[in-house]
Amino acid sequence: MNNNVRLAEILTAVRNKTPLVHAITNYVTINDCANVLLSYGASPAMCESCDEVYDFARLASSLYINLGTLTKEQEQSVILAAESAKEHGIPVVLDPVACGAIPRKLEVIGRIHELGRIDVIKGNIGEIKFLAGLDSATRGVDSLDTGDGALEACRLVASKYGCVVAATGSEDYITDGTRSAVIKNGTELFTKITGAGCMTGALCAGAAGASEDRFLSTVSAILTMNVAGEEAAKKAAFPGSFRMNFIDSIYALDEGKLLKEGDVEWI
Amino acid sequence: MNNNVRLAEILTAVRNKTPLVHAITNYVTINDCANVLLSYGASPAMCESCDEVYDFARLASSLYINLGTLTKEQEQSVILAAESAKEHGIPVVLDPVACGAIPRKLEVIGRIHELGRIDVIKGNIGEIKFLAGLDSATRGVDSLDTGDGALEACRLVASKYGCVVAATGSEDYITDGTRSAVIKNGTELFTKITGAGCMTGALCAGAAGASEDRFLSTVSAILTMNVAGEEAAKKAAFPGSFRMNFIDSIYALDEGKLLKEGDVEWI
Amino acid sequence: MNNNVRLAEILTAVRNKTPLVHAITNYVTINDCANVLLSYGASPAMCESCDEVYDFARLASSLYINLGTLTKEQEQSVILAAESAKEHGIPVVLDPVACGAIPRKLEVIGRIHELGRIDVIKGNIGEIKFLAGLDSATRGVDSLDTGDGALEACRLVASKYGCVVAATGSEDYITDGTRSAVIKNGTELFTKITGAGCMTGALCAGAAGASEDRFLSTVSAILTMNVAGEEAAKKAAFPGSFRMNFIDSIYALDEGKLLKEGDVEWI
Repeated sequence: MNNNVRLAEILTAVRNKTPLVHAITNYVTINDCANVLLSYGASPAMCESCDEVYDFARLASSLYINLGTLTKEQEQSVILAAESAKEHGIPVVLDPVACGAIPRKLEVIGRIHELGRIDVIKGNIGEIKFLAGLDSATRGVDSLDTGDGALEACRLVASKYGCVVAATGSEDYITDGTRSAVIKNGTELFTKITGAGCMTGALCAGAAGASEDRFLSTVSAILTMNVAGEEAAKKAAFPGSFRMNFIDSIYALDEGKLLKEGDVEWI
Repeated sequence: MNNNVRLAEILTAVRNKTPLVHAITNYVTINDCANVLLSYGASPAMCESCDEVYDFARLASSLYINLGTLTKEQEQSVILAAESAKEHGIPVVLDPVACGAIPRKLEVIGRIHELGRIDVIKGNIGEIKFLAGLDSATRGVDSLDTGDGALEACRLVASKYGCVVAATGSEDYITDGTRSAVIKNGTELFTKITGAGCMTGALCAGAAGASEDRFLSTVSAILTMNVAGEEAAKKAAFPGSFRMNFIDSIYALDEGKLLKEGDVEWI
Repeated sequence: MNNNVRLAEILTAVRNKTPLVHAITNYVTINDCANVLLSYGASPAMCESCDEVYDFARLASSLYINLGTLTKEQEQSVILAAESAKEHGIPVVLDPVACGAIPRKLEVIGRIHELGRIDVIKGNIGEIKFLAGLDSATRGVDSLDTGDGALEACRLVASKYGCVVAATGSEDYITDGTRSAVIKNGTELFTKITGAGCMTGALCAGAAGASEDRFLSTVSAILTMNVAGEEAAKKAAFPGSFRMNFIDSIYALDEGKLLKEGDVEWI
């Protein structure tokens, strides 16, 4: 069976398993992350109090940690949740939002890595290059990078943290250090709404909760995001209606559409 | 005048009074709760700092407490707000989100009951069964319960907390211990968006701020939610567009439509 | 060149510059603020942890402070961010949400003024009258004021805080103490969705990040909000679909439309 078929099957696996995704995420796009996970077929649970997360994480299929608006209480919670994930064998997907612009983020990532576990890091190209120790152009939470050298950056970060790494941009790069893929699908409209990056990370966590192969589950989730985005962009040219159609498209996407429209280069 | 007519009149009462609903609620669906209350005809005010809530609650027509993402600061605030509600005669609607999965929630509910007041508890069937001390199937924040024994669970919780209790699911059960009702309206699409339960609770608080009869106000609010959901499902088959149409349908709903479409069994 | 032309040019300036708007804002409408800024052409960054804001504010084109759901942590952060803005010459737009109903808000505004800087205050008419020391009718976070005396209230607040002041309502009043304007555009549907006021404030911060003339930038931002609202109201009569169309309309608005539809009285 070729890899493209396996990507499509992971979409179905999410829908069959309804993985419980424990998310600790930023307040800007927390609603978008919950809705995209529901449309994907997963069951989101945003549980973030430091009194709750250790015990709750053990119930989950996967843990999504997004460092966007990391409050002091969330800072404690993400460490505790990651420790619980390590203890109980739960895969962890990390979105290192603005790690280059805000030094505190890097410290927290270091502690998650040391005390807990990280199975997948999904960032924009600027964030991944920063984690790789490379220069990159950013503005606030957004990457202004053109993507040159992105795959090499992913490989460096994969080696450093021992996990799957994805760098998203006009093209998306994914590697586990050995296998790599480039996704050519997508739409410029993702840059006109907030939360495209966060929703991509949430889907990666959904897929990680339904498939043991973290590399393929990550490629499948990011491909799902981008093919659904293309479908939505056919129906809506402006950000407000695009956003609504995008959630519909995630829900309507099936294996056949993903196989037909997906444009993945395996490296 | 029969009960169905009174349910419809409560919808109009909300629009005539514009009750100020003081909400302390989770960050996932806080925007949805504000928007659904505005479309319903109420005036939402999300005030949650522990320095503010005691004084603010006295200005309100009703208080909505939703324990979804209960931060440490919110934990203090819900107690203070409930104490103020007790002192100043403000009705309190409680949504015990995930009380079965997260033990801390039950402690907080106990303190709200002891120090403040609870007029209505609105949960999913799994949550209500848990509060009744019965077993139930849940996954994260969602109930997987089929609804057998739900009304009996509502009665047990109504007796324990001395309040109106509603358990929502494919059918919705409401009781004040003496009078009971079952609502047959609704749509499966509510399970494909986040916040259907939270919005139902928010509407219960809106109705409680416009009617003295907490049993009928709760039935009216839940019926409004479900009839509007059915209307939206006629226009949209997918979650993103359903969600937008649902807010429109709440706004467009009137007494005639509620009476014509409402399917309530009085027990 | 007349003022109306300059208002239109500020819209284009935002799109050309893509100002980075550092926002510390309430959790009810934080997603709406991010999306409206993106559709406007700005780059929003919601950075609010007290460990991050001082260093982050210096990177921004402008700082938006909205006191809606001010947590204890945000209370520290808004002061630190405003101090950084003062130190680094970053313009600050303040939305004094519910300052009349909640005394703590006034204390925080005083400290922002004393320790940091305030370039623009954008409130509803009730809030601005309260800051001016005048009586006004309010309900929770909403103003019930008819607008009589609003411009005089703006002038008093402009004098007190030494900044541009805008009071929004069915008509909008803006002054820098010398120059004044009244905007006649708008739609009643803004009162049926949450976040219209917050989004207006966010746009004021976007414009302040792209133009040195804070009076004209504020008039331009509020005019953009209202003309886009009128466009959306032509397409949607209900709150859910209005909200979606409004984001589309902000994105689609151009200089020609703003000049043609804008109804500004210069005083």
